[in-house]
Amino acid sequence: MIELVKISLLYDFYGELLTEKQKKVLDLYYNQDLSLGEIAEELSITRQAVYDNIKRSEKLLNHYEKKLGLVEKFLNQKKKILEIKDKIMEHKNRNISFEEESLKKFLNSIEDVLNDLLID
Amino acid sequence: MIELVKISLLYDFYGELLTEKQKKVLDLYYNQDLSLGEIAEELSITRQAVYDNIKRSEKLLNHYEKKLGLVEKFLNQKKKILEIKDKIMEHKNRNISFEEESLKKFLNSIEDVLNDLLID
Repeated sequence: MIELVKISLLYDFYGELLTEKQKKVLDLYYNQDLSLGEIAEELSITRQAVYDNIKRSEKLLNHYEKKLGLVEKFLNQKKKILEIKDKIMEHKNRNISFEEESLKKFLNSIEDVLNDLLID
Repeated sequence: MIELVKISLLYDFYGELLTEKQKKVLDLYYNQDLSLGEIAEELSITRQAVYDNIKRSEKLLNHYEKKLGLVEKFLNQKKKILEIKDKIMEHKNRNISFEEESLKKFLNSIEDVLNDLLID
């Protein structure tokens, strides 16, 4: 995964555990795409302080993910949900009446994925 | 939700953010069902220290939930997944061939719930 997407997901999950200032700096850097110098000016702190702040926040977010692994769980879950959606899409596209047996198989396969989701 | 189930879920989600000692005490108290006195003896600390430790851990777990709300999200998600399973079960129990139109409706309704899951 590219770094920006990864940080963005980590921020979505664990951002609320950062301080207001840490959230502000990360937002300016990653979402508003400001440079370190621009953030320094905006917040009246040194460029080095901005850099340290970002590195510290990233370290914290990675620490939470290492402990809780919720982003990884979320991505696995999303994959499974898309898997069911694909199955459904495929069947809809065939546009033919279902045989009783094949429908049962189809529903069972969806249930299997749902059960996986419940266990995770 | 009864307190024990709630604490147990909070522990599942955020337990890894507690210290080893906090985890140990919560485990003895909630999973092994030991009394405060028994835990005090086992860990060679006072009964009051055990009590304080448990209260502090519970406060921390609730703090994380208040900030991140992952248990609530998880419960909502579980509800939606069970909703799809119910739909499937109901259709399987009818044990009749599907009309093309009703099958489409059925698959669409499953897709709706899946899309809800992806957005949450």
